[in-house]
Amino acid sequence: MNTVAVITKEELLKHWLGHRNLTRRTIEKFPEAELFTYAVPGMRTFGELANELISIAVPGLTGIVNRQVEAYAEANKYTSKAAILEVWDQHTEELKHLWAQLKEENFHETFNLFGQYEFPVIENILYFIDNEIHHRAQGYVYLRSLGIEPPFFWER
Amino acid sequence: MNTVAVITKEELLKHWLGHRNLTRRTIEKFPEAELFTYAVPGMRTFGELANELISIAVPGLTGIVNRQVEAYAEANKYTSKAAILEVWDQHTEELKHLWAQLKEENFHETFNLFGQYEFPVIENILYFIDNEIHHRAQGYVYLRSLGIEPPFFWER
Repeated sequence: MNTVAVITKEELLKHWLGHRNLTRRTIEKFPEAELFTYAVPGMRTFGELANELISIAVPGLTGIVNRQVEAYAEANKYTSKAAILEVWDQHTEELKHLWAQLKEENFHETFNLFGQYEFPVIENILYFIDNEIHHRAQGYVYLRSLGIEPPFFWER
Repeated sequence: MNTVAVITKEELLKHWLGHRNLTRRTIEKFPEAELFTYAVPGMRTFGELANELISIAVPGLTGIVNRQVEAYAEANKYTSKAAILEVWDQHTEELKHLWAQLKEENFHETFNLFGQYEFPVIENILYFIDNEIHHRAQGYVYLRSLGIEPPFFWER
């Protein structure tokens, strides 16, 4: 697996942090009330989706770095925009700290994420990012439905 | 840039192809009529979004591989589900063929995508994938709005 890197560890971090920045601005744009009440039938509110993202990224990465398998626990406990943004920023700092503890060779080790998803670490991490893009995009549709222009997708 | 790879070129291709497979199944789930008529106000139909994805991925990658800068051209010319799925499958095969012509060291070369986006090739490619996830997720909301269950996000 020694090769010229198509993406380095530092670039992948920068990529993820760019997405986190955009997701943060998407949360910020949401009106407080609709964040916890508005949803398409059969779907969750953007506040619930944000709580899912919070419950996955840093808890998942903590497990990976500490090699400690913990069950997924979605507390759904952040019930105001301010609380979500506060934990979002804390987690961004924790994420950078955790990332620094990962070595390149760890990315191809297998980890049983949340005791349920036994995959190489790189697949787990790409899942975290993809899932964030996926749910944020649903937030974009909610914002449009509410007559609010979402942030530019290409701005990170 | 010689290092243990956090993700190899082949793994990144597999990742992208997994997403293309999921997007294909999302298009398939769309009722023909709503594919070109249904949208949240201020947004495009999923048929238009699919045409954008078709206009970006393989045309962009063709430019990268051939080092030929061509302007972005969205013809929006695929106006039936069958036509979209047909070109989708053709493009998936072309993508594999183009990918085989890329070398690891090319990913950090700069390319002026569509004559507009002068970035390292890896950033352009991640953008293609992210943009696909983003618009597909909007298709998920449309499907839910239409009372149709989208494919499982984690199935690729």
